[in-house]
Amino acid sequence: MAQAQFKVGVVGATGIAGQQFLSCLKDHPWFKVTALAASSRTAGKPYAEGIRQENGAAGWWAEGEVPAAYAGMSIQNSEAFDAASVDIVFTAMDSAPAKLLEPKYAATTPVISTASAFRMEADAPILIPGVNSAHSALLEQQRKNRGWKGFVTAQANCTTTGLAVSLAPLVREFGLKSLLMTSMQAVSGAGRAGGVLTLDSLDNIIPYIVGEEEKVQRELGKIFGSLQGGGIAPAGFGVSCTCTRAAVLEGHTESVFAGLGKPASLQAVKDAMAGFAPADIKALPTSPEGGRLIKVHDDPFRPQPRLDRDLGGGMVTSVGRLRQDPVLENGVKYMLVSHNTKMGAAKGAVLVAELLVTQGIIKGK
Amino acid sequence: MAQAQFKVGVVGATGIAGQQFLSCLKDHPWFKVTALAASSRTAGKPYAEGIRQENGAAGWWAEGEVPAAYAGMSIQNSEAFDAASVDIVFTAMDSAPAKLLEPKYAATTPVISTASAFRMEADAPILIPGVNSAHSALLEQQRKNRGWKGFVTAQANCTTTGLAVSLAPLVREFGLKSLLMTSMQAVSGAGRAGGVLTLDSLDNIIPYIVGEEEKVQRELGKIFGSLQGGGIAPAGFGVSCTCTRAAVLEGHTESVFAGLGKPASLQAVKDAMAGFAPADIKALPTSPEGGRLIKVHDDPFRPQPRLDRDLGGGMVTSVGRLRQDPVLENGVKYMLVSHNTKMGAAKGAVLVAELLVTQGIIKGK
Amino acid sequence: MAQAQFKVGVVGATGIAGQQFLSCLKDHPWFKVTALAASSRTAGKPYAEGIRQENGAAGWWAEGEVPAAYAGMSIQNSEAFDAASVDIVFTAMDSAPAKLLEPKYAATTPVISTASAFRMEADAPILIPGVNSAHSALLEQQRKNRGWKGFVTAQANCTTTGLAVSLAPLVREFGLKSLLMTSMQAVSGAGRAGGVLTLDSLDNIIPYIVGEEEKVQRELGKIFGSLQGGGIAPAGFGVSCTCTRAAVLEGHTESVFAGLGKPASLQAVKDAMAGFAPADIKALPTSPEGGRLIKVHDDPFRPQPRLDRDLGGGMVTSVGRLRQDPVLENGVKYMLVSHNTKMGAAKGAVLVAELLVTQGIIKGK
Amino acid sequence: MAQAQFKVGVVGATGIAGQQFLSCLKDHPWFKVTALAASSRTAGKPYAEGIRQENGAAGWWAEGEVPAAYAGMSIQNSEAFDAASVDIVFTAMDSAPAKLLEPKYAATTPVISTASAFRMEADAPILIPGVNSAHSALLEQQRKNRGWKGFVTAQANCTTTGLAVSLAPLVREFGLKSLLMTSMQAVSGAGRAGGVLTLDSLDNIIPYIVGEEEKVQRELGKIFGSLQGGGIAPAGFGVSCTCTRAAVLEGHTESVFAGLGKPASLQAVKDAMAGFAPADIKALPTSPEGGRLIKVHDDPFRPQPRLDRDLGGGMVTSVGRLRQDPVLENGVKYMLVSHNTKMGAAKGAVLVAELLVTQGIIKGK
Repeated sequence: MAQAQFKVGVVGATGIAGQQFLSCLKDHPWFKVTALAASSRTAGKPYAEGIRQENGAAGWWAEGEVPAAYAGMSIQNSEAFDAASVDIVFTAMDSAPAKLLEPKYAATTPVISTASAFRMEADAPILIPGVNSAHSALLEQQRKNRGWKGFVTAQANCTTTGLAVSLAPLVREFGLKSLLMTSMQAVSGAGRAGGVLTLDSLDNIIPYIVGEEEKVQRELGKIFGSLQGGGIAPAGFGVSCTCTRAAVLEGHTESVFAGLGKPASLQAVKDAMAGFAPADIKALPTSPEGGRLIKVHDDPFRPQPRLDRDLGGGMVTSVGRLRQDPVLENGVKYMLVSHNTKMGAAKGAVLVAELLVTQGIIKGK
Repeated sequence: MAQAQFKVGVVGATGIAGQQFLSCLKDHPWFKVTALAASSRTAGKPYAEGIRQENGAAGWWAEGEVPAAYAGMSIQNSEAFDAASVDIVFTAMDSAPAKLLEPKYAATTPVISTASAFRMEADAPILIPGVNSAHSALLEQQRKNRGWKGFVTAQANCTTTGLAVSLAPLVREFGLKSLLMTSMQAVSGAGRAGGVLTLDSLDNIIPYIVGEEEKVQRELGKIFGSLQGGGIAPAGFGVSCTCTRAAVLEGHTESVFAGLGKPASLQAVKDAMAGFAPADIKALPTSPEGGRLIKVHDDPFRPQPRLDRDLGGGMVTSVGRLRQDPVLENGVKYMLVSHNTKMGAAKGAVLVAELLVTQGIIKGK
Repeated sequence: MAQAQFKVGVVGATGIAGQQFLSCLKDHPWFKVTALAASSRTAGKPYAEGIRQENGAAGWWAEGEVPAAYAGMSIQNSEAFDAASVDIVFTAMDSAPAKLLEPKYAATTPVISTASAFRMEADAPILIPGVNSAHSALLEQQRKNRGWKGFVTAQANCTTTGLAVSLAPLVREFGLKSLLMTSMQAVSGAGRAGGVLTLDSLDNIIPYIVGEEEKVQRELGKIFGSLQGGGIAPAGFGVSCTCTRAAVLEGHTESVFAGLGKPASLQAVKDAMAGFAPADIKALPTSPEGGRLIKVHDDPFRPQPRLDRDLGGGMVTSVGRLRQDPVLENGVKYMLVSHNTKMGAAKGAVLVAELLVTQGIIKGK
Repeated sequence: MAQAQFKVGVVGATGIAGQQFLSCLKDHPWFKVTALAASSRTAGKPYAEGIRQENGAAGWWAEGEVPAAYAGMSIQNSEAFDAASVDIVFTAMDSAPAKLLEPKYAATTPVISTASAFRMEADAPILIPGVNSAHSALLEQQRKNRGWKGFVTAQANCTTTGLAVSLAPLVREFGLKSLLMTSMQAVSGAGRAGGVLTLDSLDNIIPYIVGEEEKVQRELGKIFGSLQGGGIAPAGFGVSCTCTRAAVLEGHTESVFAGLGKPASLQAVKDAMAGFAPADIKALPTSPEGGRLIKVHDDPFRPQPRLDRDLGGGMVTSVGRLRQDPVLENGVKYMLVSHNTKMGAAKGAVLVAELLVTQGIIKGK
């Protein structure tokens, strides 16, 4: 187990996901934030001033107040940021700058990214610790391919993450043939710049999120795919999604219909989910208690995003309303709630870094 | 075409659906409200006072102000209401009193009910004009069976209605094999007594509506079933639903995945829906323009409940995001919005009465 | 009364206020929109495409669908717009471009502006028809001062408008000494660019709107001031405001405490408000019925923004909860609701144009 | 300082305030809940079952899950509850049952009540620890008057509490002459039975809360009054309130205009508030850190109810937007946020009990 402290940099530190990184790293036993970077708009400013400038009214949006340790830290320009000055880089940027800057950082340093830029690169895994931990082997391949000392590993889209967690024990125990999912997603997923206006969300459902459905469909195949010939052969099940936005602050809710590979009783499905506690994540600092990634609710009025999103520090996927589905072959259906900016973004990325440390793939310099 | 005026009574007149009845009947060319009835709590009071007492803050909840024609009308006690005094009774009661009182009314007078009490009776149709107009033939059977001069015909559940409308042209042109639906329903569906609290709905999704899913599943089969031996043999397609509640005032949103009976291009599906304008409803006063029950939106950000619920006076089902579904056989998927207290309740019931008048099943006395 | 049609141009046509202009002008008996202009971003595009580009999801935000008459009209570049091609220019721009462009337009053509740029110019009135109609005399002064054929007259801030309307009969009949007001404002006031995020508004009150309180305080003094020496001497009463934002789509709600100039019974205050129907606006097309600008509600649960904002086509200020105030001298207190993008912006500006036409200050060319 | 444990009973344990009692007592160093009581509807049931029955969807509404210590405890019938079995009774009932039952309990045991029943009794104080701690002397008077071993002391209304806290340092240092307040109150204040419907709150402000304004006006006078002749002579300042309901879950927001007894700079007002840390509450377990009851925000966008309600465990009143008021004599104005079901109800009542223990007025039996 890693005891030493790793120096980490957070790039894109002023946004919502960036703040979630700082919030979850402020008392981290292994990782110490020594560098903050963001766009040139706030470069050179103290962090507390930068977030005010970028976010207006709210400034610091995560729990409580901006941690004292960061308030006065000077924001570096992400374009000039020297990644070699840290052991790990966490990035929370838009896709376009991520595409340009993450390879630069990776030349010297491991990069854990919440952006989508690298998700579908052949030599980059989409790691969810405990779900497909072994895919990290691909990172050695990536180093070799690209001549980098570091690498880039991307988080799944926040909508994919909770869904993949809920499916993992089903895929393992029963196999999966088909999946139909409808999401009601929280507004925090859209961030602040380009965020969802009250004018659009109040007393309303927005039936479309550009690009989201394709992401979920592609990423699920890769996450449950198999390492093969220096890449990942996607899993063969069919996936079909409809992604919508609801007037919810945090926590994505998803209605899932799944056709399993073989018949399974509801009790067996429930036991598989409730018992899902991968051994390799149990001791990770950011892991929920006992590594139990799923809570199965018996109360039919759960899960609800407001009541359940923060379960296990926002790292537990809540599943409820488990029922047989009469339409799909070996069909089951359920609802899930997963915290989109914690497990689905920053804290999930920290969990990946913790896994890679225990796997020996991230080492101090 | 009927020109004469029919005297109508509205029972359950103080609730949300009751108000919608009055709102849509106030300038009706064929129907004239001559009696209002409600529970003993408000019996004997002027209508304007009764709705204030029952509904507190809002009193009149439908558009505008309480119509002057009704404000001073005395509310009759629904238990003592003499149905023979009118030509048609519209009821908007809870299921339990409906079960007791509707048969009493039906002994003398046709009853169009928004309650669920009669929906699954073997000799009662669930009529949606233009979708299954011919099912009205069952009402003669019902009169005979029960020795009534009138009858009871029940509206579909508000969640079933928009879904059935959107499916009708598909069933007709391509057949339907399988259906998976997830709803995000408006709070007005729950009414005021027992209504959805802000404490539960704000910043939240409620994943369960007691009994709703079973209703949709059962009712769809009956609506698309065939008249047979004095009853209706249900349609054979598989249906699976998950019904949730969102913080939306009016307008149910539904995410639909449908497996058709044969391959169909998206254009063919779109044409079938957009062209759905049943001949027998075109001239009905409450029918949307040209009898076109469906609007198909090309804008992927539509339909939205706040923007689209009132289309065609709340009688049009808005469909959008029409796509192929890769999982179901001959699969298509789409979103729909349907006004739950207009087309899905009171105005839908008025449309049924209009159809029955033109069919000669409702006659003046 | 003017019967001839005036050609009008709408500048800033793609925003919320711009759309409200088009919505209320589409069937106007006197005014015909012959030119649409907006920023260079959408210049040259058909209007329907321009609003989609600017507004994303919602595109057209006012009631119903984008009027057919405008959908295909080409958007002109506001910087190059030839104001001489129309008889009246309505502007709905941000303050900075308004400051640059409105004088250019005014060189040839009357400009009615919803922006704040001209509000505090010494030779520009802040007209509210029926409240201070005589202030229009200042426009001749302005023409002379600046050598323009046209002029610029600015609308009051949307928060000022409803308040001024409610105060007008009190000022007239009893005088006003002091005013304390707290607003709960709708999000539409902030427009789309820089609009209020769901992340900030949901389950929340935002206690500050930059610059708003100062505007209300300054503008009230000017509106109730007196023409004097080529300018307006502000009224002498004291004003103190706190302006907040609530999760309401449209309709500003204000809690008012007013100290009158002399004692007045509640009945007298109510009569003054309910009877406020200035003669010079009664026949204006956009005026509410009978020119009655105020509705006084007896129901203590009114006014509510959702239920009352659209009264009189959004041109009526709803007042309720009228009570004595025990703290201020001759104190009364009440709540009001006023539609911020109708009476408080576009439709209010159209009403001003109508007044100026009947006053002979706007003439066809 | 009391070290011994007191046995406490919570009556009205299934409602929102009752749950807040349990939530804040579950790890309390002095108080141990040994009895739960509620209406006959849930009497005899395990607590977890009782809250489900009463509250439907949500069941447990306070943070996290229902504490394990209480889930299985049997609910006693509040009408039969033997108050002598505990050392302190906390009540969270409606006013009518409170009036009947609290005197019964008080015959043997101190009762701390969140109901309004006793607030205006001449021999009952409205205690806010640190604001008017000395008023507890009246409880001896009450015991004597009524021949009770215990007493009843009532909490202020939740809307009064935060306001009184914010005023306390001003009253003390500058005096207070006049007060005008407009509230935007959270829906949790209305509880679940008779709670605020989404149909009424969404996209809306409700301008009236029955009886609320009178409560605030009366209670403030008493809280800042002086002990005199076996009762309390109310303070002489004028108070005028308008109380409204907004779509906020928890946390009352208030806009305050106050006329002080003498001139004071904003800095002096700020210092008085920020420095308000009454010595007699500093060591109480439920007191915020250092007994500092007020946080003064410099950020003009604060306080916001969602961001600030939980400050200091919901026991701190957040004040912001401190400005001079030009209308009132020696006027200042500010916004405040106070947690209505924590400081304004259950946790506030626990703080009172703690104070009375340290004052020796509550003793173990």
